[in-house]
Order: sequence, then structure tokens, then C-alpha cells
Amino acid sequence: MEKKTWEFSPDTRVLASAAVAGPMERKGIIGKYLDHSFDDLYAGEDTWEKAERKMLSTAVDTAIHKSGKKEKEIGVYLAGDLLNQNITASFSAQKLGIPFMGIYGACSSSMLSTTLGSSLVSAGFVQHAVIGVSSHNCTAEKQYRYPTEYGGQKPNTAQWTVTGAGAAVIGKAKKGPRIRFATIGKVMERGIKNPFDMGSAMAPAAADTIISHFKDTGRTPSDYDLIVTGDLATVGHPIARELISQAGYDMGPQFSDCGLMIYNKDQETFAGGSGCASSAIVTYGRLMQELTKGKYKKILVIATGALLSPVSYQQGENIPCIAHAVSFENDQPST
Amino acid sequence: MEKKTWEFSPDTRVLASAAVAGPMERKGIIGKYLDHSFDDLYAGEDTWEKAERKMLSTAVDTAIHKSGKKEKEIGVYLAGDLLNQNITASFSAQKLGIPFMGIYGACSSSMLSTTLGSSLVSAGFVQHAVIGVSSHNCTAEKQYRYPTEYGGQKPNTAQWTVTGAGAAVIGKAKKGPRIRFATIGKVMERGIKNPFDMGSAMAPAAADTIISHFKDTGRTPSDYDLIVTGDLATVGHPIARELISQAGYDMGPQFSDCGLMIYNKDQETFAGGSGCASSAIVTYGRLMQELTKGKYKKILVIATGALLSPVSYQQGENIPCIAHAVSFENDQPST
Repeated sequence: MEKKTWEFSPDTRVLASAAVAGPMERKGIIGKYLDHSFDDLYAGEDTWEKAERKMLSTAVDTAIHKSGKKEKEIGVYLAGDLLNQNITASFSAQKLGIPFMGIYGACSSSMLSTTLGSSLVSAGFVQHAVIGVSSHNCTAEKQYRYPTEYGGQKPNTAQWTVTGAGAAVIGKAKKGPRIRFATIGKVMERGIKNPFDMGSAMAPAAADTIISHFKDTGRTPSDYDLIVTGDLATVGHPIARELISQAGYDMGPQFSDCGLMIYNKDQETFAGGSGCASSAIVTYGRLMQELTKGKYKKILVIATGALLSPVSYQQGENIPCIAHAVSFENDQPST
Repeated sequence: MEKKTWEFSPDTRVLASAAVAGPMERKGIIGKYLDHSFDDLYAGEDTWEKAERKMLSTAVDTAIHKSGKKEKEIGVYLAGDLLNQNITASFSAQKLGIPFMGIYGACSSSMLSTTLGSSLVSAGFVQHAVIGVSSHNCTAEKQYRYPTEYGGQKPNTAQWTVTGAGAAVIGKAKKGPRIRFATIGKVMERGIKNPFDMGSAMAPAAADTIISHFKDTGRTPSDYDLIVTGDLATVGHPIARELISQAGYDMGPQFSDCGLMIYNKDQETFAGGSGCASSAIVTYGRLMQELTKGKYKKILVIATGALLSPVSYQQGENIPCIAHAVSFENDQPST
């Protein structure tokens, strides 16, 4: 039986990363870790879709600039988003002009693209890869739920789609956050149909991937200084903790969720943040900074995705979910 | 500057492949090469979306069965389709239970998934990968154009979305079609906005990838016994030929298009076939059979994708396109 966990070469690292977001995120916990934030949800464009694209392009351009690499030195751009036909990613790729591979993992896209980018760099197919993902509250609302202006009421289990984008340049280097393991998730569902309770739907997939990661690597929760899921938020996160505990792993206080690390408590976001940008701006904004500074030695990010569509929901289907985990490590000697 | 072409280990091969389609394809040129075809567009399901999913699952299951591998021996399933949020691929992954990576490249998905599967096998991250893509005429029509029952009129430049799915198991072996090179495309547009003329929109991307392939590998058109684009059809294919000729390469009579290798001339399909299944059922149905039998020694498949969405079209955007090329080779000594 094949393992679900892949290990990359020791020199496969994040050369630079960037996080970009909207005005509400700027006011939240994540605010001070952002490379750039926009004053309004249009970001100077005439549609929300173009605004989302501008955020993704800004994140990618910023990460490339910070890496010191030129675009022609980057062999592949791997990107995904939530919009139908992945238009944010594809149109950003047109602007960028780097060979492009589109991926789709809903909110698991951050670690899906990171895994593929790391694989291609580690194996030497490219010297450098840039990855990027995005989401936008208004483009997601109008596509998945109701016309945004309608202002539909939501239950407390609902989540708030994060407006923003995260990006990273992956390459081979001696320093910087090492990307060591990736654990690839399976698609699973546990009978949840309610699109206003994604956290409960995604928790089993997160638990399955985390348990597989521990089994494949021989690691335990205490090997990590921080373990974060992507967007399980207040409803889904305790369910994941309980499911993992049933498999014999006590997740401890270092187990958190990116959806709970973005907004302040006084911001009305129901159960917490969600969307591709949730795990992306936390990981590629805050966590890479903290890892580099030595606050953490080893972190595990499990990006969680709900792979439904409005059509699958309307046809009475349950919500299939997936989670992909990546470990980032600071392996420099302490000074 | 990084090359756009990657070379895989000499033992990276197609272990088995399968092609599945609908009733109209069965009556076409491709009919005799199909592993399975369904009698009607519902394939025994109650929605077209579920029918498409059944076709993809059937293709994947058939390819795995033909490979002689068990599902637990396959480390990753890479799949994509045309539907919003990739639901055909994701729901088929739930049924299959193999670690899953969703990709999105519109009709370039066949060679995008083949490239990633080959990379992961060649580098040893997995021992075996299975890839699969699908499209369905009715699910695509209702999503991209008008309600299918409406029966909107179309110009002759329009194409007919192929109903079907193709799949392949990739692994390391001494025999079977070798997957040698993949050339990764860039996203580009040349001012075409008309979604009823995808062939003209995609031709420049196809030409760019083919020219890059020749430059990177040092090969010329005559090194291949067959070079097929995915779904440029009667309008786009001559444009691609002309663009490549301007770069100094005479494509010769061995340059064809999968969209022209599916239906008979008396079947009303406007400019020809399109959709993820166009390149997939021709490549993983007919071409792998003919390559194995020795009819061809070297073939190059360039899957072409139009990365628009109804929203991007309605917002006045041009159609961004991409093409990915993969070379398949029979390197066994002639008998």
C-alpha cells in the first residue's frame, strides 16, 4: 500500500512568500502580517472578480519580488481559486506569462499547490515554482449563495469567506522554511448536506489526513509547535480534535485553525473565516514570518476544502471534502 | 531561463488506458476504439451530471483493471473536468478512495493531468498514478451556454462538446508507451471574445506550445509520426498550422486534431469535437492502441484549453487559452 505522505529533498524551501487582503482583514488579527491590503472590496477595479484577480496578482508579484528571482527564472506557476472555471488563477497567469498549471481543491488549494510546487522543485523538473491562491467574500457569496446585495440571513454555523490571496516562491536553498512532508488527502463525506455548516462537513477529512500524517511519519502532535487546519472555524475544529483523539492522538493546545486567526472577536464573521485565502494568508503571511524568526521550529498546515458546487447541492448530494497537509520546518541551528 | 519542457525517466510509461463515451461517439470514427459506451446521455442516472461522473468512474475503473494494479497500489488520482467546482472529478474521487489532486485546465486537462502524474511517478513520490478527465455535451451546454432544452442556434465555427471520459494508469515499467516529454503552456489570448469560436481562440496557445516543444527538444515535426491538437477542429487547426509555419516549422500531413477524429462527416457537429474528452478518448482510446501495435513510433498530443467562464465572457473579457503537450513513444525494438 502506498503511503499518503511524500518527503521532499532537504533543500526544498520557501524562498519568499506574501499575503494580501481586503479592508476587513486589515482590521483583524492578521492585519499586521499582511504585505499589502486594499482600502475597499473593489481594489480599484470595476468588478469584484477583477478585484480578486488583482489581489492574487499582487500577492504573486510580491512573493517573486521578495525572492529576488526574475519571472523568467520561474519554471511554473501553480494556482487555484474558488470561482467557476478557476478564472482568477487563469487570468492572473495570462498577466504573469509563466508556464501555468491550474489546480482545484477549493479551500485546500493552498497546500495542494504547495505540494505540487514542492514536488516539481524537489525532483528538479523546475528550479523555482511560484504558487498562489485567492478568495473574495463578494465573488464567493454571489456564486455559491445569493446575490450579494440581497443580504441573506445566515446561521451561526456559517463562515465568512476571507478576501485575499497568498503566494510563495519555492526553490532549492540552504536557508529559509524547509518544506519537508506533504500528506495527500482522500475525498470523503459523512452525510453533511448543509452548505452553511462547512466546518462540520470538512472535519472528518482534516482528521483523516492528520492521522495519516502521524502514521506515515511516525510523528505525534507534540513534535509540532503549531498545527493549524485551514478553515474549520469554531464549529468544525472541535469535531476534528475529537475525531483525532479517538484515533489515540491528543492534539494539545498547539492545535488551532487559520479561520480563527484572521478576524477580531468583535468582527461579525459567524463561526470564523473560510476560503482559499484563509489558510493562505495565515500561512504565507504570519506563519512564515514567525517560523523564520524562530518562534516555531515545526509547523503543520492542513488546508481543508469542501468540494461541492451549487449544482451538486441542488441535486441533493452530500458535501465531499478533502484536506492536504504540509509541514514547514525551521532547521537552522539556534543562535 | 527555464525550459518549458520536462523529460521523464525512461521507465515512466502508460501501464493501461481506457476510453468511455456516449451514444453519438459510438457511431463515430472513434466508436471501435472505445472500451465502453453508453446507450443514452443519462447512462442510467437521473441527471446528466451523474451520468458524466459515471463515465469518468467507468474509464478510471477500466484503466485500473486493465493495468492489473489494485487501487491501494495507486498513490494518487489526478483528475479534472469542465463543471463548476470540478464536481465530476471530486465526486469520482470520493467513490474511488485514492488520495486525490484536482486539476483545472479546461480541455487541456488530459495532458495537464498526464504531465503531473508522470512527474510524480518519474520522481518516485508515488509508484503509480491514475489520471482521468471527462466532459458531457449536456452538462457543458447548460453551464456555458443556454438551457440545453432551449436548442439555441449555433454558427459553423461552434464545436460539439464530446460526451465521454478517458483515463490512464502511469507507472514504471520496461514495456508500454513511454511518456518522454511534457511541454507546459503559458496562458495567452489574441483578442478573441466569441465563445462560439474556441478554435480560433486556442490556436495561438497550441502553436506557442508546439514551437516551444521543438525548440526545447531539438526535434522537428518530421520526428513525429503523428502530432495531434486536442480540439482546434476545422476552424482553429489551420490557424495553428499557419502560425507554426511562420516560425519555420512545416507541420506536414501528420498534423491532425482529435476533434476531427471522433465523429463521422455526416454527424452534425459544426466545426468538430471539443471538451476534455476530445483529446482524452482519442489519446487513451485509439492512439495508445495504435502506438502499442507499432503503427506509430512517436506521437505528440497537444491538449488545448479555453479558460473562460460565463462570468468572464459577460464582463467583456477575451478568452485566455493554454495548451500542454506530451510525447508518447514506442521504444520497443521492431519485430
